[in-house]
Amino acid sequence: MTTKQRILVSEVGPRDGLQSIQPVMPLEAKKAWIAAEAAAGVAEIEVGSFVPAKLLPQLADTAEVVKYARTIPGLAVAVLVPNLKGAEAAVEAGAHKLTIPLSASETHSLKNVRRTHAQMLDEVRGIVALLRSLPAARRPKFEGGLSTAFGCTIEGVVAPDKVVRLAEQLMEAGCDEVGLSDTTGYANPAQVKELVKRVKAAVGDHALSGLHLHNTRGLGLANVLAGLEVGITTFDSSLGGLGGCPFAPGASGNVVTEDLVFMLEAMGLETGIDLPKLLEVRRILRDALPTESLYGFTPDAGLPLGFVPATPGATPGPQAGAAAGVAA
Amino acid sequence: MTTKQRILVSEVGPRDGLQSIQPVMPLEAKKAWIAAEAAAGVAEIEVGSFVPAKLLPQLADTAEVVKYARTIPGLAVAVLVPNLKGAEAAVEAGAHKLTIPLSASETHSLKNVRRTHAQMLDEVRGIVALLRSLPAARRPKFEGGLSTAFGCTIEGVVAPDKVVRLAEQLMEAGCDEVGLSDTTGYANPAQVKELVKRVKAAVGDHALSGLHLHNTRGLGLANVLAGLEVGITTFDSSLGGLGGCPFAPGASGNVVTEDLVFMLEAMGLETGIDLPKLLEVRRILRDALPTESLYGFTPDAGLPLGFVPATPGATPGPQAGAAAGVAA
Repeated sequence: MTTKQRILVSEVGPRDGLQSIQPVMPLEAKKAWIAAEAAAGVAEIEVGSFVPAKLLPQLADTAEVVKYARTIPGLAVAVLVPNLKGAEAAVEAGAHKLTIPLSASETHSLKNVRRTHAQMLDEVRGIVALLRSLPAARRPKFEGGLSTAFGCTIEGVVAPDKVVRLAEQLMEAGCDEVGLSDTTGYANPAQVKELVKRVKAAVGDHALSGLHLHNTRGLGLANVLAGLEVGITTFDSSLGGLGGCPFAPGASGNVVTEDLVFMLEAMGLETGIDLPKLLEVRRILRDALPTESLYGFTPDAGLPLGFVPATPGATPGPQAGAAAGVAA
Repeated sequence: MTTKQRILVSEVGPRDGLQSIQPVMPLEAKKAWIAAEAAAGVAEIEVGSFVPAKLLPQLADTAEVVKYARTIPGLAVAVLVPNLKGAEAAVEAGAHKLTIPLSASETHSLKNVRRTHAQMLDEVRGIVALLRSLPAARRPKFEGGLSTAFGCTIEGVVAPDKVVRLAEQLMEAGCDEVGLSDTTGYANPAQVKELVKRVKAAVGDHALSGLHLHNTRGLGLANVLAGLEVGITTFDSSLGGLGGCPFAPGASGNVVTEDLVFMLEAMGLETGIDLPKLLEVRRILRDALPTESLYGFTPDAGLPLGFVPATPGATPGPQAGAAAGVAA
């Protein structure tokens, strides 16, 4: 990490954030949010989930959101799909990337999607068949997202062997890549390093590029640092830390995009994101979701005086001084 | 870090926390706090500061606090001293460790203690002469604490060369060790690693053992992880994140002791601290300081189901399940 390395910050707020809260964000606000983050330089956004509207009314307009997001030049439009039916809808709408969640804890899988591991892997094979039937130019990338990879609130400890085996099975079933999710906020940096190394050793360096980390116990950014040190280059996060665990009041769930980008840029790692512009996007959330708490330390504290971001052209200049003045 | 390594968590709340807030904590509450944290296994506590009572009325009873804390078996009693006069009072009270803050930013030094670097180094030499006149058994350890080492809200960037030179001068003046403080919450993990390596190279591995990190921009624990990876074994923190920067509302200043201990223990690093017992100490703060916000994620989220701490005998057992149940 001595030269400027490029890190992909994948915003998941419009999916993981909005599915975790009570209010339904209007379609126009979703569009404004996605457009503003893309304009700030965010290159990938998970914009929704193709699940039945009666289960998640907050995401019922995902097809429309995908169609809009696709019109933004350069933006990779990602969605979650729980099954083949969802994948068909995602392909129809034109998503660039599909992620299917597979819970390493089978108890959690049964509770969450009412399917065993074997049933989920069948679903994965069905989706792979669908995607391979498409012309290459229209074929979205397909990721298997291993949730509860670092522990489960029902099963407790999740054996690394099980996670490694499931990662292998997802790749064997035809996924392009796998990701690891700390759904429960149980992960610690030593565990992140160990599990990433083991999964990479099993499926290959390039098949594991991403981590989805939570900040439930405050370790989110420390776990990101651990991931960076074992070669992870994609990190999920949520603007304002929106979403995550609704069962732990006061504890933000997802890693906060603003703090993550600040850490990476301060470390000399290019995100391509203009931090002052990103901080301004919070206003859209505040206006559209007035009853929700927004998290993040950097938005409150402002940027350090003299802060030089890694991303060229995103130098905050006088704004940094103004922001730092708050904390002077 | 593959075998269980011992890490010293140095609680600074009774000094750094209490000096940053308006209310004055009664002496009895301070004693109860210190006793409870020591009983939970915290081995070093900075209990106060020998500064004029008119400047910091919150710490006017420091001599009494030191005398009480000395009666707790096994507890290392640390204090801050701004000058020779403070050091004399600290020796008289019987503190085991004295830290003098030297701000790497001379502008900050002038504003904070109205002294230049040269004047502060004279003060250090005076204190060293005092300490060397004491019988070895009564001689406290003396640390030079380099504040604003990672940046200053007035000067902005602080050159690493300047920090290295001041560390050398502190050791030349007779300090036993130096510490680095991210007073402003400007540090990032890459910077922590680089500066620690440079200072260790200049003054020797054992002369730099401690980091005092803030969580102003949410990077506190990531910076701790960076420190661990370059051999730092002592970390300051504050229960409930009390204190730190009063100018950034909503942003906790100090690294939160509860979250720090959770991270270290989860990583297999022994702190000697019983985490469930530590979490209970928050009640003393809540009762004694009802108007203050307490920070920390682990206290809200509870310990993970099946959590096994590194410290032997501190296995939370059924309590972990109960706490995790909140987030299940």
